[in-house]
Amino acid sequence: MSGYIVLGDWGTTRLRLFRVENGVVTDRAFGDGIGTPGIVPEAVLRAALGPWLAAGAPEAIRLCGMVGARDGWREVPYAECPASRDDWFAAATDLTLDGVPVSIMAGLACADADGVPDVMRGEETQLYGALALSPELATGRHIVILPGTHSKWAVIEDGAITGFRTILTGELFALLRTHSTLARGLAAGDAGVEAEGFAAGLARAETGVLSALFGARAMQLRGGKTPDWALGYLSGLVIGGEIVEMRAMLGGAGRVTIIGDPRLADRYAAAFAQGRTAVRRLDGDACVLAGLS
Amino acid sequence: MSGYIVLGDWGTTRLRLFRVENGVVTDRAFGDGIGTPGIVPEAVLRAALGPWLAAGAPEAIRLCGMVGARDGWREVPYAECPASRDDWFAAATDLTLDGVPVSIMAGLACADADGVPDVMRGEETQLYGALALSPELATGRHIVILPGTHSKWAVIEDGAITGFRTILTGELFALLRTHSTLARGLAAGDAGVEAEGFAAGLARAETGVLSALFGARAMQLRGGKTPDWALGYLSGLVIGGEIVEMRAMLGGAGRVTIIGDPRLADRYAAAFAQGRTAVRRLDGDACVLAGLS
Repeated sequence: MSGYIVLGDWGTTRLRLFRVENGVVTDRAFGDGIGTPGIVPEAVLRAALGPWLAAGAPEAIRLCGMVGARDGWREVPYAECPASRDDWFAAATDLTLDGVPVSIMAGLACADADGVPDVMRGEETQLYGALALSPELATGRHIVILPGTHSKWAVIEDGAITGFRTILTGELFALLRTHSTLARGLAAGDAGVEAEGFAAGLARAETGVLSALFGARAMQLRGGKTPDWALGYLSGLVIGGEIVEMRAMLGGAGRVTIIGDPRLADRYAAAFAQGRTAVRRLDGDACVLAGLS
Repeated sequence: MSGYIVLGDWGTTRLRLFRVENGVVTDRAFGDGIGTPGIVPEAVLRAALGPWLAAGAPEAIRLCGMVGARDGWREVPYAECPASRDDWFAAATDLTLDGVPVSIMAGLACADADGVPDVMRGEETQLYGALALSPELATGRHIVILPGTHSKWAVIEDGAITGFRTILTGELFALLRTHSTLARGLAAGDAGVEAEGFAAGLARAETGVLSALFGARAMQLRGGKTPDWALGYLSGLVIGGEIVEMRAMLGGAGRVTIIGDPRLADRYAAAFAQGRTAVRRLDGDACVLAGLS
């Protein structure tokens, strides 16, 4: 027995592996994302494991993320919500790599009250990790948010994920920043001015995002604002818009859990502070590890 | 006297000129947009006029659009709302080209009740044209909509433009269609299926656009929908979202006027039909000509 296992998050753009021995991460390794054109998954995984194999093969490998998508290594059917952690584990697909057992975890699928579907692959691992790390999430109804390119808002009820919604907030911001006519001269040089723009964008989002986007330009032309301000304004608009649209999911909850990048979590916390919603935060990597363990 | 004048719309991407004799358009000409890198406006205008000059120089040239912007040929300060047609004409800037008087029309600027500014350059010409063509717009309060890349909703009160709002509906649709992760495989091969998606998008827009965008993908993965459907869905979402956010501007108005591209106007008419708002349409070119005449 080599005495270690390998846990990993294999997304579209990156493979991240954790070497875990007696419950402790002893090393990390990286490799190409599963969406890399022409990728040979076995070869990428062997290369990433390479240095660790000198001490023997791992006892097991467990992977989450787009590795289990139709265009991944092996398609793993979605587990259907409501899904407890046990349901999710049972939905994994097992294979082997050079004799080592490999589990590819399932994504989750749900449908809202109108039958509109949604899916996730990878984020569910962090959600189950949050459950493992936070006993208070195991009973009652809780909202957990993973902000990002595709933000996810999930409802956890009595320890099971009962539903969720994907919002393209980060992607929309990137599109506006990179490709739109609003992008001209957008900058982020003055953090104070950007924060002022962010607050203005949050406030405007209450009355609609689409009709407020052009304000990023008009406020420069006629309102004396700078490109720094406009960048913050757009960020405030899309994050504020996400929260406005998803507010109904909160129900009576006066508290949300946010998993992920600290800087982004700061922005969400600022937005929630306006609505007097308390925020607790969890580290993304800690949640991935707890979810896969 | 050569007996003709030249009216023109000189936007960022295109110059369109109309040769007008005794109130009738006798010919059209085209040239590079004023946003073309390295453009020499005088040279482009001379080249476009070229064939007409054989019959003598025009008596006057009147141009609207981005030609009057800071990066245009000559910056013309915005006329401030409320602005009657007379106010707008008075705000034009006059110059000459080879001895021919040239008027460059002003754009309009406004501020909403919160002091948030907005601007237009070019669309005001169509609005004043609509007023000239439609006596019923000259008294009372009316809403006129110019759908497009940057949709404009304008309020006309007793013959003056009193305010307006820019919504980036067409640009957002183009960004989503061209650059987003939703774009993969989007198609428009089956008009019937696309129309079904459009109706679904319109309906979803009522409860929020941002949180419904990912549905374009999820409904293909899990709802049995096709790329044609998804394209229509996204179009319905952004147009529906525009109307939802702007509904307050309608006030009690049970009728709107739409100026522009017939196919796009069809979509807006379908959306307004759901809200039992009557739509009358005006031709975009007819409005440009009436506005400049």
